[in-house]
Amino acid sequence: MPRIKKIDHVAIVVEDIESALEFWHDALGLELSHVEDVPSQQSVVAFLPAKESEVELVRPTSKESGVARYLDKRGPGMHHICFEVYDIEETLSHLKSKGIRLINEVPQIGTGGKKIAFVHPESTHGVLVELYELSAQEPSIRLARARNLADRALTGGQNIVDTAMDFLRSLRRNNN
Amino acid sequence: MPRIKKIDHVAIVVEDIESALEFWHDALGLELSHVEDVPSQQSVVAFLPAKESEVELVRPTSKESGVARYLDKRGPGMHHICFEVYDIEETLSHLKSKGIRLINEVPQIGTGGKKIAFVHPESTHGVLVELYELSAQEPSIRLARARNLADRALTGGQNIVDTAMDFLRSLRRNNN
Repeated sequence: MPRIKKIDHVAIVVEDIESALEFWHDALGLELSHVEDVPSQQSVVAFLPAKESEVELVRPTSKESGVARYLDKRGPGMHHICFEVYDIEETLSHLKSKGIRLINEVPQIGTGGKKIAFVHPESTHGVLVELYELSAQEPSIRLARARNLADRALTGGQNIVDTAMDFLRSLRRNNN
Repeated sequence: MPRIKKIDHVAIVVEDIESALEFWHDALGLELSHVEDVPSQQSVVAFLPAKESEVELVRPTSKESGVARYLDKRGPGMHHICFEVYDIEETLSHLKSKGIRLINEVPQIGTGGKKIAFVHPESTHGVLVELYELSAQEPSIRLARARNLADRALTGGQNIVDTAMDFLRSLRRNNN
């Protein structure tokens, strides 16, 4: 039985989302679907879909998070790769039976009931691996987020990127 | 006009392909499509498809290659992300016009006529980015490689992974 559905995303930790978007969106040409403040992860995330996977630009919003420590120690760059799996409990139990070191032995429950768990880089040859099982509600939550950004853009008479930039600036004001 | 087609692969530099496959294939459950000696890149590469993208495990076969220096300096881990683009010349020219630092200003031509170029991490917020334009011949070349591994497996009465392991061991004997 296949265990992995696809690469869900590659997360890149950056010091500043606006200037990172100048490369990843403006120059390289990836779409920007939405930007989100994720207080539970102490970060702001920009989501850039590329067909069935995404690039996620992650900026830490506190000094204490794992992402902030990574940025301090190694500088900006690729932080983790996330795979969508069919059955996260089965996958975690299989990995455990193979002696793989798990950061989360039990899936963490995120917004919309999605389940995530991390595998320790010690067991993966240096890569922080996230596993992710989509919940039934999540596709509509993602669509609503993208629509919300598009609606704000329409209401403000702006394009999506300018609207996302306004959002990022308002977050920065609140964080500082 | 969209510029990026999809994430083609994420390359992970490892010290040893066999033991890396114990996690990425045996435990995590990614398929193994083929293993290849790439003398032009001074490396051996294992290709593990996940839907429309791949994970590539890369082991350097010389001390002088970029991958070998990366491994020495940072240890095993994610080395680069590769995007398939519709038109690599147009993409490179657009990136150049935006002031992005390119490692290859002109695409390098690989097997089967495929075109590749790298973007310098200095301009991408710390990520080595590969761009890749598929040639018309390449899908059949990839299929032939996967079939070749499957045929060797059938002839030898082995499964594909054991056959790939034999190949890796024969390479190691030749390299040492």
